[in-house]
Amino acid sequence: MSISAKLLEDAIGRVGAAGRPGDPVAVQAHLDALTKPPGSLGRLEELALQLGCVLGDPPPPLDDAVVFVFAADHGVAARGVSAYPAEVTAQMCANFSGGGAAVNVLTRACGAEVRVVDVGVAGDVAGLEGVEHRKVRTGTRDLTAGPAMTAREAADALAVGVEAVVGGEAVVGVDVAAGATWPGGAQGTAGPWIVGVGEMGIGNTTSAAAVTACLTGAPARDVVGRGTGVDEVGLARKREVVERAVARVARLQNPRNDALEVLRQVGGLEIAAMAGAMIGAAARGALVLVDGFISSVAALAACSLCPALPPYLVASHRSTEPGHAVVLDALGLVALLDLEMRLGEGTGCALAIPVVRAAGALLREMATFESAGISGPSDVPTEAAP
Amino acid sequence: MSISAKLLEDAIGRVGAAGRPGDPVAVQAHLDALTKPPGSLGRLEELALQLGCVLGDPPPPLDDAVVFVFAADHGVAARGVSAYPAEVTAQMCANFSGGGAAVNVLTRACGAEVRVVDVGVAGDVAGLEGVEHRKVRTGTRDLTAGPAMTAREAADALAVGVEAVVGGEAVVGVDVAAGATWPGGAQGTAGPWIVGVGEMGIGNTTSAAAVTACLTGAPARDVVGRGTGVDEVGLARKREVVERAVARVARLQNPRNDALEVLRQVGGLEIAAMAGAMIGAAARGALVLVDGFISSVAALAACSLCPALPPYLVASHRSTEPGHAVVLDALGLVALLDLEMRLGEGTGCALAIPVVRAAGALLREMATFESAGISGPSDVPTEAAP
Repeated sequence: MSISAKLLEDAIGRVGAAGRPGDPVAVQAHLDALTKPPGSLGRLEELALQLGCVLGDPPPPLDDAVVFVFAADHGVAARGVSAYPAEVTAQMCANFSGGGAAVNVLTRACGAEVRVVDVGVAGDVAGLEGVEHRKVRTGTRDLTAGPAMTAREAADALAVGVEAVVGGEAVVGVDVAAGATWPGGAQGTAGPWIVGVGEMGIGNTTSAAAVTACLTGAPARDVVGRGTGVDEVGLARKREVVERAVARVARLQNPRNDALEVLRQVGGLEIAAMAGAMIGAAARGALVLVDGFISSVAALAACSLCPALPPYLVASHRSTEPGHAVVLDALGLVALLDLEMRLGEGTGCALAIPVVRAAGALLREMATFESAGISGPSDVPTEAAP
Repeated sequence: MSISAKLLEDAIGRVGAAGRPGDPVAVQAHLDALTKPPGSLGRLEELALQLGCVLGDPPPPLDDAVVFVFAADHGVAARGVSAYPAEVTAQMCANFSGGGAAVNVLTRACGAEVRVVDVGVAGDVAGLEGVEHRKVRTGTRDLTAGPAMTAREAADALAVGVEAVVGGEAVVGVDVAAGATWPGGAQGTAGPWIVGVGEMGIGNTTSAAAVTACLTGAPARDVVGRGTGVDEVGLARKREVVERAVARVARLQNPRNDALEVLRQVGGLEIAAMAGAMIGAAARGALVLVDGFISSVAALAACSLCPALPPYLVASHRSTEPGHAVVLDALGLVALLDLEMRLGEGTGCALAIPVVRAAGALLREMATFESAGISGPSDVPTEAAP
C-alpha cells in the first residue's frame, strides 16, 4: 500500500472513531433552556446542535477558520465545455496569490484564512507566494476518451487533501500508522475547527457532473449546467461530453459502489483532494463547510469512502448550478444560505463562517431562563378576550 | 407643530434629498469587471449594487454596525395573545443589559454594537445599564378597545427612533430646522453605515398583524401567527383580537393612506420608534437592515410616511411568522437569509451584517480582469467535441 493510500485509510479510520464530544440530548436540552421561545432560532439552533455534538458543548472558540482552495486543470476543458480558456486556472492562482479574488475578499471580510493548494494546475504556478505546491500532475487526461487519472494519481490527490488539513509534510514520510503527527481532538488545542473546502479549475463542472451522474444515477441533463456561463451550444456539447463519459464508466462493474474508481475515471485532481481534505478535517474533529456544486460532489465521494463523515458536514450555500440540488439531496443536506451564487472558490464557505460562529456563540454565551431570572411561558392568560 | 413632529418631518425631507452617491450604471459596470463570471455572486452582487448606490462605490468601511432594540409593552397582552407574560419585556431588558440575550450574543459574534432603547416598557428598567431611557408611556392601551396611543404619543415614539439614530439629545431641543446637528452624508466620517432595527415587546406580533391588515388589506387569518408560540386556543383568540381591532380602524377614513393614524390606533410604541429609526438612518445616508415580522411592519409604515425610503432597506431574513411574507411582498423585498427564525430582537439583522460587509468588500477590494491580467470568456472552443 502506498503512503498516500495508507494516509487516506488512516484518516478514514479516525473519523468519529473516538465518538463525538457532545451528547445530542444534552445539547438540545441546553438549547431549550436559553432565553428564547424553544426553536425560535430555527436552523441556527439545528446548526448549534450539530456543533455541540461534533465539537462539544460549549464548543471551542471558532475565531480561527480556514477555507482551502484546491486548484487543478481538466483535460476535458479542451472540448469547449467552459466559457473561459483553461489558462484561467493558473491566472486565478496568481489572483489568489495577490489577494484579489472573491474568496480572498470574502475570507478577509469574515476574518478567516484562505489556503490555496495547487494539486494539478496545467500552468507553472510554482513562483506564486501563498500557493502550496502539491502538483500531482499537470491536469487530468480527457475524461471523454479514457480515465482522467491513474489509480495512483487519484490516491495521491486524495492524500494531498488529507495532508493539507492534517499537517502537510509532517505526516507524509513518517509512520502514519502510528498516528504520531495527528493533532488532538476537538477538546485539544489544535484548531481551526471550521474547515471550508473550495476549488478552482476550468472545466470542473463537467467533471463534477460526470461524477454526480455516476454516483447517483441521475441523468446528464439533470446535472449539467452552464458552469461559468456557456451558451446553448456549449451546454449541448457539455451534456454530450458528460453522457459519453458516463456511458464509458457504466461499462465498469458497479460504479456507484466505487467512489475511488469514479473519481479516477471522470473526476478531477482538485475534486479528489477536496474529498481528502473533508475526510482529513473530520479526522481531526473539525466541522467541514461544503461550498457549492463541485465541493458537494467531493463530499458525496468522501461520504462513500468514509461512511462516518456526514455528521461533520455543513452545506454552506445552495448554488444555482442545477446539479447541486441533486447532490445535496443525495447527501441529505439542506444548504444554510441561498444567495443564488455559482462562483465556487469557497466563496459560499466564507459567507457561512459567520453563521457557524454565531451558532457556536449561542452555546457558549447565551443566558438561560434560569440564569437570567426570566419567566417561562404562561399557560393561563391574565384576562380572556370578552 | 411639536418638536417631535418637526424632527420626523425634517428626517423625512432629508432621505435621498441630496441624491445618492453611487450611479447604478457605473456600479454595475464595476461589478461586471471583477474577476468572476458576470452575475456569479448572485444576490451578493445585487446587494453590492444597492450598497454602491446608497453609500458610494467604493463604499466606506463597514466595520461599524449597530443593531437597535426598541422595547415596549402592549395593553393587548392582557388579552392572552402571547405565550409569555408581559413582565418578560422588562426581564428581557435586564437580559440585554447583562449581555446574555440572543441579540447580544449574535451582535458580539459579528462585531456589531447593540443599543437598547426603552420607548415604552411597562416595568421600571431605569436602573439598567446600557438601556437608553426614552419611555413615552408605560405600554400602549389595549388596541381592541380603542386607540393604542394618542397622536402625540405616536409622534413622540417616532421621534425617539429618529433621535436614537441621528444623535439623541443633541437633536431634540435645538433648532432642528437648521439641521445643525445632522451628521454628514455617507462620504463623511460619521458611521455606522449599517443600522439594524429590532425589537422586544410581549404582544407585539398581535399589534404588528393589526398594522399589516390595516395597511395592506390582508385578512387577519393571513397575518396572525403563533408569535412566541401560542397554542390553538391562543391563536384563535389572537385572530379575533386582530379582527376586532381592524374592524374598528376600518371605520376611520382611508386607513391604508394614513400610516401615522394606523400606528396610533393599533401599533406599538416600539413599532413607531422603529419606523422613526429607519427614516433617521436613511436620512443620515445609512443602509437599513430590517429584521423580521415586526421590523418589516415598521418598515412598511415608514415607507408610507417616507416614500424615498425603499432604496435604503435590506430585508435581513425571512421569518416563519406568516405575516412576514405578506409584508415583504408589500415592501417588494426578498430576504437575504432564510434560517426559519422567529425570535426578533434584531437577531436576523445581526446575522445579515457579515453578508452586507462582504458585499461592500467586493466593491472595495476585489481585482478586475484587467488589474489581475486574467483572460475573459473565450467564444471559440479550442477543440470541438468529435
